[in-house]
Amino acid sequence: MKHLLMSLLFVLCQSELSMAEEMSKPLTDNQLQTAATLRDSVLVSNEAWSIVESLTTEVGARAGGSAGDALAVQWAQDKFKSLGFKNIRIEPVTFPSWKRGIEVAHVIAPFKQRLVITALGNSIATPDNGLQGEIIHYSTLTDLINADADDVAGKIVFISKRMKAFRDGHDYGKTVPARSSGAKEAAKKDAIGILIRSVGTDSNRVAHTGNMSYDKDIKKIPAAALSNPDADLLINMLKRKVPVIVNFTLTSEAGEDYTSYNVIGEIVGTEKPEEIILIGGHLDSWDLGTGAIDDGAGVAITMAAAYKISLMPTQPKRTIRVVLFANEEQGLFGGEQYAIAHLDELQKHIVGAESDFGAGKIWKFSTKFKPSAKALGHQIHSVLEPLGIEYGDNKAGGGPDIIHSKKAGMAVATLSQDGIDYFDYHHTANDTLDKINPENLSQNVAAYAAFVWLMTEIEGDVGFFPPDSK
Amino acid sequence: MKHLLMSLLFVLCQSELSMAEEMSKPLTDNQLQTAATLRDSVLVSNEAWSIVESLTTEVGARAGGSAGDALAVQWAQDKFKSLGFKNIRIEPVTFPSWKRGIEVAHVIAPFKQRLVITALGNSIATPDNGLQGEIIHYSTLTDLINADADDVAGKIVFISKRMKAFRDGHDYGKTVPARSSGAKEAAKKDAIGILIRSVGTDSNRVAHTGNMSYDKDIKKIPAAALSNPDADLLINMLKRKVPVIVNFTLTSEAGEDYTSYNVIGEIVGTEKPEEIILIGGHLDSWDLGTGAIDDGAGVAITMAAAYKISLMPTQPKRTIRVVLFANEEQGLFGGEQYAIAHLDELQKHIVGAESDFGAGKIWKFSTKFKPSAKALGHQIHSVLEPLGIEYGDNKAGGGPDIIHSKKAGMAVATLSQDGIDYFDYHHTANDTLDKINPENLSQNVAAYAAFVWLMTEIEGDVGFFPPDSK
Repeated sequence: MKHLLMSLLFVLCQSELSMAEEMSKPLTDNQLQTAATLRDSVLVSNEAWSIVESLTTEVGARAGGSAGDALAVQWAQDKFKSLGFKNIRIEPVTFPSWKRGIEVAHVIAPFKQRLVITALGNSIATPDNGLQGEIIHYSTLTDLINADADDVAGKIVFISKRMKAFRDGHDYGKTVPARSSGAKEAAKKDAIGILIRSVGTDSNRVAHTGNMSYDKDIKKIPAAALSNPDADLLINMLKRKVPVIVNFTLTSEAGEDYTSYNVIGEIVGTEKPEEIILIGGHLDSWDLGTGAIDDGAGVAITMAAAYKISLMPTQPKRTIRVVLFANEEQGLFGGEQYAIAHLDELQKHIVGAESDFGAGKIWKFSTKFKPSAKALGHQIHSVLEPLGIEYGDNKAGGGPDIIHSKKAGMAVATLSQDGIDYFDYHHTANDTLDKINPENLSQNVAAYAAFVWLMTEIEGDVGFFPPDSK
Repeated sequence: MKHLLMSLLFVLCQSELSMAEEMSKPLTDNQLQTAATLRDSVLVSNEAWSIVESLTTEVGARAGGSAGDALAVQWAQDKFKSLGFKNIRIEPVTFPSWKRGIEVAHVIAPFKQRLVITALGNSIATPDNGLQGEIIHYSTLTDLINADADDVAGKIVFISKRMKAFRDGHDYGKTVPARSSGAKEAAKKDAIGILIRSVGTDSNRVAHTGNMSYDKDIKKIPAAALSNPDADLLINMLKRKVPVIVNFTLTSEAGEDYTSYNVIGEIVGTEKPEEIILIGGHLDSWDLGTGAIDDGAGVAITMAAAYKISLMPTQPKRTIRVVLFANEEQGLFGGEQYAIAHLDELQKHIVGAESDFGAGKIWKFSTKFKPSAKALGHQIHSVLEPLGIEYGDNKAGGGPDIIHSKKAGMAVATLSQDGIDYFDYHHTANDTLDKINPENLSQNVAAYAAFVWLMTEIEGDVGFFPPDSK
């Protein structure tokens, strides 16, 4: 019955196509059954847990340009080797380095209290004795943009918008502009510094870092995030309607350019080794935690999925390439460099999928395939469905580090993870191994393994889009 | 029906008594009804929230002997005054002072990683360049006590027992000896330092402080707590079966004796002003958070309960004395001093009850009344029951700061709060206002107000126990 339904669905999807477009050949029952067997065997395995335990224990924090970055690059090569990957190699990725330093803050008046802050990535330092000024409070970045410059000049801007938790994390995009652009908007109105409420959904006295940027035509001002309880405290003080004076010190600094590496390992295809199924995560993390959910989990899930496929009696027809991208956090440097370095062979990338949203269960499978291959997405989904995964749509994004390759035309899939608690820990000291549920992690690997293996099996491609198509 | 049941219960309890003992006179239906009306009006009020918001915002951290301690003493007197309390006064409490300093830790080998620690209260400092040594791991304090001294000598002891969460917090007593006595037991075997897993039930990168003590005949060694994720990390490193070397630096120091104050405010009784219903919490907190749940909540609940009674059309017959105890955290100093200073009038203390277990809903009411008055406890409980409060037993402890007064013979009651998440935040930077649910707080005030008012109404006493009775 199920196979009949799938076949009907396939015909239905294909019928949407213009007659001129060639339809993708459907996967066979045998192929789907093999993928299901693979899925079930992976579901009870724990390779991904071992990998992320190793990375967080033996390397830990690995911010781009740090000592941990170099250690992680070595770790990744060693891990690929121990798992039997082939064509293990590193590809240089150069970026400006930035280092966090001391980060201390106090309310000076009306009530002297300590504040927990963390520098935003890329922020300049304050003066050595701290930056001191009166707080001017806006609920949102938009309120700051609409504010009278006279109210802002000479003050420390405080933006207090709180991020709400959703499974798909959609409030991140609505909240993060205060982090990325707040300093520019505040400086345009001659603010001397900016403190934002952490872009995070928790209530811990742990602040969330994340990247921000300056504009060459706008004065640079120091920028930091307050933990959620500290943002609440400032608001309660501000309710007293007396000036709130804060002093904060950052000793962060930009350094020389640093060259790190995308680390690549492959399970080489037997029939079409030049055709590539690209999966991966980013190898770097922020410096505050041990990078377990962001993105040790993605590294582990995709390494483990490829490894499990390599253990099958018959090796895959196409090459499975696992790419561990350098320095995603400070500007998608590894992902961009990969697209540049591999531009010539991008048309041989059958599909790409990055795991970079923590370690929650996958609940949705989406594709960005050519119309004639959409039905293949539904077939693949039929193997994922028993894992509790619903079908999304054909508008998948694929992941941050493959966005450049997707723009160049690569087909992508997104295996959406449940991120209801992702932003409790994201970019904080709390991003540690204990936040990962081993069973959820195995569900991720099972889904990736089944998806990837089916992609090695399909006839033809799922659509190298011309770069100008969406 | 309910009143009939209560009367039967009353007779039943009284029948347990020897004929020689005089039975307490039961509360009347009118009295019970007045208490119920008070309870319901308090339940929808928010005075306690305003008080704890004021304390955490305007004072914040207030460790015994700190600048915040002095601020809190002034705050408490001002707050009593603004709420119309009478006989507002301070009573000196002197104790040795201790200050936290820098607290930094790293694993040096086999994998260099930062560890989040906090000094245990009373710990000595490490050498300026840190204390460095190999970790020797024990799961429990008992394992350390049973260990071969040769294994421990020259090493840094690590005790990893993890506290489990229960509503009544009973695992605290089983876990906290590692904190209070671990340094002594480790030093007996010539350890150079000790790191314990935080006595806390959370998974945050936030360590839990708390008091420890030395013995004059045993060498003092530095003692700190690791956050739970950091304790997990150490365990994972230790699984590699290679020596784990840690370096940690504490600059904590003991200082001169400091004199703080118990702060007292009263609602003066109209008929028997010399007879006292004693309630309160402790005014001090640890230095890491803003002391919201420990014990701003207790301060607020008991102040608000007495205040609400003061607003009744008829003033209470007995005096309600709210005592905000000094420096509970570092050794119950305020509570002990209160019992000493008030020894002569303790027989006039009808009952005592302290609120010091956070801000969760009260779920159980227990007493330690003389046998002839046990039935009164059941009557009082009948007014608390609609708040979702069950009856406990007649073995109540009363609270840490009244333990000395109880030992001297004072009757006590315990209004047990739901502490399922109390030890997630207890003694950490996370002890902040956002951890308090305003509705739960009002339920606490309603229960205290009804209980206290009924205690001002009862005929006679509920039993000043001879100090030697249990």
